[in-house]
Amino acid sequence: MFPADYGLLTPAWAATPVADTTSDTAFAQAMLDVEAAWVKVQADASLCSAADAQAVADIAKVELYDLAELAGKGPDGANALIPLLGMMRAQLTTSGAPATAATALHRGATSQDVIDSALMLMAARSITLLRADLLTAGVALSELSAAHATTLCVARSLTQHALPTVFGLRAANWLAALTAAGRVLDAVSLPLQWGGAVGTLASLHQRLGTSLPYKSEHSLAERAHQLSTALATELGLSVPVAPWHTVRQPVLSLGSALGSVIAAAGTFGADVLTASRPEIGELSEPREAGKGGSSAMPQKQNPVHSVLLRNAAFAAPAHVGTLFTAAGTAVDERPDGGWHAEWAPLRELLRLAGGAGHHAARLATGLDVHPEAMARNMALSGDLLVSERISAVVAPLVDGGKAAVQELVLESLRTGTPLRSLLLGVLPSDMDNHVFLDDLLDPAGYLGSATDFITRIRDDFNDWKVS
Amino acid sequence: MFPADYGLLTPAWAATPVADTTSDTAFAQAMLDVEAAWVKVQADASLCSAADAQAVADIAKVELYDLAELAGKGPDGANALIPLLGMMRAQLTTSGAPATAATALHRGATSQDVIDSALMLMAARSITLLRADLLTAGVALSELSAAHATTLCVARSLTQHALPTVFGLRAANWLAALTAAGRVLDAVSLPLQWGGAVGTLASLHQRLGTSLPYKSEHSLAERAHQLSTALATELGLSVPVAPWHTVRQPVLSLGSALGSVIAAAGTFGADVLTASRPEIGELSEPREAGKGGSSAMPQKQNPVHSVLLRNAAFAAPAHVGTLFTAAGTAVDERPDGGWHAEWAPLRELLRLAGGAGHHAARLATGLDVHPEAMARNMALSGDLLVSERISAVVAPLVDGGKAAVQELVLESLRTGTPLRSLLLGVLPSDMDNHVFLDDLLDPAGYLGSATDFITRIRDDFNDWKVS
Amino acid sequence: MFPADYGLLTPAWAATPVADTTSDTAFAQAMLDVEAAWVKVQADASLCSAADAQAVADIAKVELYDLAELAGKGPDGANALIPLLGMMRAQLTTSGAPATAATALHRGATSQDVIDSALMLMAARSITLLRADLLTAGVALSELSAAHATTLCVARSLTQHALPTVFGLRAANWLAALTAAGRVLDAVSLPLQWGGAVGTLASLHQRLGTSLPYKSEHSLAERAHQLSTALATELGLSVPVAPWHTVRQPVLSLGSALGSVIAAAGTFGADVLTASRPEIGELSEPREAGKGGSSAMPQKQNPVHSVLLRNAAFAAPAHVGTLFTAAGTAVDERPDGGWHAEWAPLRELLRLAGGAGHHAARLATGLDVHPEAMARNMALSGDLLVSERISAVVAPLVDGGKAAVQELVLESLRTGTPLRSLLLGVLPSDMDNHVFLDDLLDPAGYLGSATDFITRIRDDFNDWKVS
Amino acid sequence: MFPADYGLLTPAWAATPVADTTSDTAFAQAMLDVEAAWVKVQADASLCSAADAQAVADIAKVELYDLAELAGKGPDGANALIPLLGMMRAQLTTSGAPATAATALHRGATSQDVIDSALMLMAARSITLLRADLLTAGVALSELSAAHATTLCVARSLTQHALPTVFGLRAANWLAALTAAGRVLDAVSLPLQWGGAVGTLASLHQRLGTSLPYKSEHSLAERAHQLSTALATELGLSVPVAPWHTVRQPVLSLGSALGSVIAAAGTFGADVLTASRPEIGELSEPREAGKGGSSAMPQKQNPVHSVLLRNAAFAAPAHVGTLFTAAGTAVDERPDGGWHAEWAPLRELLRLAGGAGHHAARLATGLDVHPEAMARNMALSGDLLVSERISAVVAPLVDGGKAAVQELVLESLRTGTPLRSLLLGVLPSDMDNHVFLDDLLDPAGYLGSATDFITRIRDDFNDWKVS
Repeated sequence: MFPADYGLLTPAWAATPVADTTSDTAFAQAMLDVEAAWVKVQADASLCSAADAQAVADIAKVELYDLAELAGKGPDGANALIPLLGMMRAQLTTSGAPATAATALHRGATSQDVIDSALMLMAARSITLLRADLLTAGVALSELSAAHATTLCVARSLTQHALPTVFGLRAANWLAALTAAGRVLDAVSLPLQWGGAVGTLASLHQRLGTSLPYKSEHSLAERAHQLSTALATELGLSVPVAPWHTVRQPVLSLGSALGSVIAAAGTFGADVLTASRPEIGELSEPREAGKGGSSAMPQKQNPVHSVLLRNAAFAAPAHVGTLFTAAGTAVDERPDGGWHAEWAPLRELLRLAGGAGHHAARLATGLDVHPEAMARNMALSGDLLVSERISAVVAPLVDGGKAAVQELVLESLRTGTPLRSLLLGVLPSDMDNHVFLDDLLDPAGYLGSATDFITRIRDDFNDWKVS
Repeated sequence: MFPADYGLLTPAWAATPVADTTSDTAFAQAMLDVEAAWVKVQADASLCSAADAQAVADIAKVELYDLAELAGKGPDGANALIPLLGMMRAQLTTSGAPATAATALHRGATSQDVIDSALMLMAARSITLLRADLLTAGVALSELSAAHATTLCVARSLTQHALPTVFGLRAANWLAALTAAGRVLDAVSLPLQWGGAVGTLASLHQRLGTSLPYKSEHSLAERAHQLSTALATELGLSVPVAPWHTVRQPVLSLGSALGSVIAAAGTFGADVLTASRPEIGELSEPREAGKGGSSAMPQKQNPVHSVLLRNAAFAAPAHVGTLFTAAGTAVDERPDGGWHAEWAPLRELLRLAGGAGHHAARLATGLDVHPEAMARNMALSGDLLVSERISAVVAPLVDGGKAAVQELVLESLRTGTPLRSLLLGVLPSDMDNHVFLDDLLDPAGYLGSATDFITRIRDDFNDWKVS
Repeated sequence: MFPADYGLLTPAWAATPVADTTSDTAFAQAMLDVEAAWVKVQADASLCSAADAQAVADIAKVELYDLAELAGKGPDGANALIPLLGMMRAQLTTSGAPATAATALHRGATSQDVIDSALMLMAARSITLLRADLLTAGVALSELSAAHATTLCVARSLTQHALPTVFGLRAANWLAALTAAGRVLDAVSLPLQWGGAVGTLASLHQRLGTSLPYKSEHSLAERAHQLSTALATELGLSVPVAPWHTVRQPVLSLGSALGSVIAAAGTFGADVLTASRPEIGELSEPREAGKGGSSAMPQKQNPVHSVLLRNAAFAAPAHVGTLFTAAGTAVDERPDGGWHAEWAPLRELLRLAGGAGHHAARLATGLDVHPEAMARNMALSGDLLVSERISAVVAPLVDGGKAAVQELVLESLRTGTPLRSLLLGVLPSDMDNHVFLDDLLDPAGYLGSATDFITRIRDDFNDWKVS
Repeated sequence: MFPADYGLLTPAWAATPVADTTSDTAFAQAMLDVEAAWVKVQADASLCSAADAQAVADIAKVELYDLAELAGKGPDGANALIPLLGMMRAQLTTSGAPATAATALHRGATSQDVIDSALMLMAARSITLLRADLLTAGVALSELSAAHATTLCVARSLTQHALPTVFGLRAANWLAALTAAGRVLDAVSLPLQWGGAVGTLASLHQRLGTSLPYKSEHSLAERAHQLSTALATELGLSVPVAPWHTVRQPVLSLGSALGSVIAAAGTFGADVLTASRPEIGELSEPREAGKGGSSAMPQKQNPVHSVLLRNAAFAAPAHVGTLFTAAGTAVDERPDGGWHAEWAPLRELLRLAGGAGHHAARLATGLDVHPEAMARNMALSGDLLVSERISAVVAPLVDGGKAAVQELVLESLRTGTPLRSLLLGVLPSDMDNHVFLDDLLDPAGYLGSATDFITRIRDDFNDWKVS
């Protein structure tokens, strides 16, 4: 039996774009990319030949390696890079590469340099896809909030009817969450890791010291820094203050940002799940062929995008937490298990965020809105939906004030008598009470800054979009 | 690029026995096994023909299915069973099975029945392997504690030297943790899930009602229960009180038990990591060819088993937590995302526990113990190691009591003068102080119930072992 | 400003019975109880005088101590027992106790012995209250499931209408979850911790060795064991295999059990939150004076018990996880931070479980059930609610089989034509189709084993209740 | 028994500065401050009188309220603000305040507005203290790294000796982690929450509409925005894009930043715990009177600051995770339990971060460094510590290359023969091998960019410090 995973147990991200950028294949390729880039940087700096760089580039192709075999060797050194290096050297021999290529390969680096950098590379590639999906979702939600800026619906708190609002503001709040998370994601720096065995680059200095006219230690450090910078540039990663083998803020910031995206998408999914319950019926997921059906119950249309968003929202927090546990227990110059515990949750967060972005985009672009159901649900509460307003406006006009109004509300609830009739009975007779009540009880007149907030949130999204 | 995982990022369980029993392949096979068993049970009960059962058994082989394709379809229905059923039906057609086989397939069941039962089956298979490794580890630790029942070493609290103990008791404590976790694991029930679309078995009743002489509802329920029981027996699972689609205690108990095993192994690994630091040097991991080496630093021997145990101990708690989140938010007759969030952490806990059991067994059976280092480390504290005893015994004998003794201890710490000399200066002259101090300061005389505790823990393990 | 907490930020357990048994006051009293019991046990065994025991008992009263001052000294030794002992000794002096009382106080014990035992004592006291609430909730839910064994309602999966069920079965599933968690809780052992500085009881041996005639190490160990057993009995705790300073299974089992209770109550709350949405309206929380109201929106009745159950369900999993992190990283003879990290989450789990039990009991005993709303919601799906059954029964009777039936369902969904009419058009004319359809489409005829499952779950609860 | 907590179970933050700023008292005061500030803003905008503002300010003093009573009422509305408002109104009555003060109190606000804003205020106050401690710790660590820029010590990976480094770089890495976390903390925005019952400010509009001449909805929204801005300014909070009742990014960013600080301090503590083990002895915690002692074992000095840092590092991740769970499950216009689940973990993170900052500052400013122990530990590995360098430099000079050198290393390990002697035997005789080996084997010559990295990290800290 062949022990590979395809995502059978993780539909939240299976078959979404990040599935490809986060597979073991993709991770192995990222490690190969780091190794190849480093030899190229050395060649550019005349620390080895262009032929060496080419030879390594030629064998830095994941299809040359048996990943199942590689994974099987991982436990021997507690990571996959050590056996991969052995397999790369064997490939160099097989391919007739010059012996100097093998010497330049991984020169001065430690396994953590390559694995951390490969994870950052994997993150960069995945985030590119994720950001595209967030923009798609955002554009759709922005349009939805504009289109429904005056679509009245019930606003709920603690599950109960509270006041009127517009559906456009609810959609805008989903957008606000995605935008805020997107900004956090953009602020994440994905740094190169390059420090050698203990974060001093001693081995690299050794190489530089012998291959250059004699230089003071400081000039070697400058030179080493230039090489790190060149490598970061080659890989599209940022240059850190110093090696961060035990300074895990990059991982914490990345993990928190991914968790933020998933949480933002989760609240979108949670609202759609509620709204697509048949009794509420305000929203439905896009009907797509083969999606959400049940063979046994042909009438059923499951809100699968939302279910998967909720799945991701439940799954992600634990992974975020593990990253903090690992970071807070790092010891020595390179950690004794905490570092190893980062890999799986970091990858899973990339996947869940990618999956959440993808399903949020699908959901936002295809969401069916049912204003008539929103109106029907509002009618359930009737005039009581603006009881806050009634209380504020009517209390000063009647004997007994607020308490008297509250009594009318309870009477309406108890007897079913429309609140309007009860109010008519107590309002001063010198007012045009019908006109007054038409105005007072109109939910469309009690929306506060809803339109303004929609605009602010859309503007903020547009501001982020072009950043 | 092919999006499969082989365990490159999870060396804590890669290449251990559970890697095979928990792969997507294994999970798919478990789903197939459940479906095939159900048709067999139906055939045994004359609800379909033996030929139907055989036809389904023939296509219930994971190698007939493209798991990557299957995973790709998972998101459409938010789980992998729905598309698998479609592929099974296609296989039945292809294989020329009787049409009645397709009818019997999955009859009356819901996807959650099959997935939950398949997960329990996967758990049962993995736990069999895990238990074997726990026994191997336990036997080795039991022997180790017996062998070192009188090997003196420093007992430490909050990282500092505290009192003398014997290494056998430390090993016994590792054994105690594994035994306690093993007992918790043994108490876990792995139940069949069988309830139909909403946990009422209505569809099965429909089938039974039309295929049997008319029976009262109760007799149908009895018959349905017999079929569930037969299916549980066929699969080696237990029979639950009722379907547990939203009653997730089985998952919580299983997850907590697996977490307990991982924690128990984690403290073993944590102690070995400490003890194998070169400055302490009391233990070293088994030297195995190709294990723990560093090509760059040939003198280095990394304690990889322990690192992987620690990795697992850091990784597992979050997965346990997610299971509780999922369980506590289950709604309706079948949940809207919480259930889906259980699969990945439950599988990962099976893997981490299996990996922890495996590495604990390897570590326990090959651990090198260095009594001379233990003696050397004890010597660092010298007589101060029994200062608790000195304080208790000498205080009543000298002027100033406890405070006076404490002053001597601090003087010894400050000046380096052996405590023995200082004590000689204050002890009453009418005693044979040299003999008295030989006895008082002998760490081997201050071990309390160490031997007794070793015996009790070993007895408890033996008691569990044969259970 | 005085740094105390009263539960302002934790309404999930504030003002419930466990608030008293888990306060710092209660914990301090539990530590005092352990210290006093130990001197009593010593007195019973003639290791000190009855007067010593009485003197310690007299000062083992929490009201004698300034807990704010005590808490302020906690960080000096990283725990609260060390300064408490100092304060106890001062109290003994003040109270004119014999000097021997101070000698007997805490003799041979370590701070972890007292703190672990005090936590177990606090757990025992809290669990007594919790179990009573679980029984109250269980009895109410059991009655509710019996009373509504034939109250039809919609069964939902993935938030959508699936099939008919009875409300009694939903209530029975809440009961099943509470019963299962209750069984797990009952299986938890709350052991005494008694090991001395490093888990060998060396200091106790020293005391026994000098105060008794017999001497062999084994007999001292027996004697020490008898004293531990007597102390456990005195405190109502169980006797462990050996000291468990680094063998944290008791904490893991306790934490998991409490988490299970909270999860079980959480799914109850989640269902009530859904069902009490105005659009669904199948259930409402008990109306209680001053509960759930909103001064601004007088019509609003918030489902506060359910909100607090959900609050607890979201809060608990992380605490469970932390206990596993702490357990899996314990090192040496006594841990270096992991042990300390257990206290707060363990206490919070006791509180959340106690709060969840309390609110579940309140909710279960006062829950308002609205069968008419259940009927109204069923009507939304109409005949489609039994489409699974239609598909199974009608398919064999019509041309085109299952696909033809599915087409009718979709036509009904599309056009609003009742499915019954469409079915009449295709059924064979030689049947009494009206009678057939009356029978086929009756949701009450498609309930499977619902009644049976209710009975099994109630029986299981009754079985647990008397255990 | 009075159910208050003083921190007996949480020594990680008890008695540190944040204990005062995060107590229930502090939180209640923060709620009072928000309410008072809002009436003041209204008065400034002529929406009520200055006398109203003064009357509310006069009763917005926490000492006027019985917090135990308040906490007891919390569960009735699922939060503490609702009963606090009632108590404030009673105080206004008692104090003879004008009736208009009660009208202005809380006008247009919802409980979530006040609680969220109060939590942000509590965070701001706590972070001010935390930042001061981080700077203290940072300055001390910066000086330590400069002072020990050439203090040789062993660099370790996976617990084993790897290469030489300088202690200054290890200290610089602690500094790097604190600086990085500090930057994350500085980037956190603490926004006002102000949205009214459902985030539309409808009630405020109502008030503005009736009290102002102008009427168009937009101008009211502008006016409402000005008032929110004024309130934010009054409280020292930032102005959000829009109300964020269900858009919980501010909480996620705050929680992640606090978790980052705790993790950074955790790795500092983890390293000190290792280094202060007697066998390693490279560092010791500051000796402070009454700190870390053990009455039973007078020689013992526990590293309590580090233990508490580790305690915090283990405790924090779960709280971070819970914030993500809560955020990702927020529904409707205001959530049904998720919001409530944020309060306790957010407060605990403030406490743990404050405690970690405090203990890190104490530890950094008083840390004892023992260069002689560092030298002694280096000597354990001898020449093997630079085996990476030997391998790189000698391999090209000898027959058999790298493999031959590796064989010498293993021979040295096996036989104890110094590697230097073995190397002398194989080096070409035409070199001045003694001088060559003196140079090659000097650990001080194999430090790479250590000095440079120290400088970069210190510069980065200085850059942050003045920001």
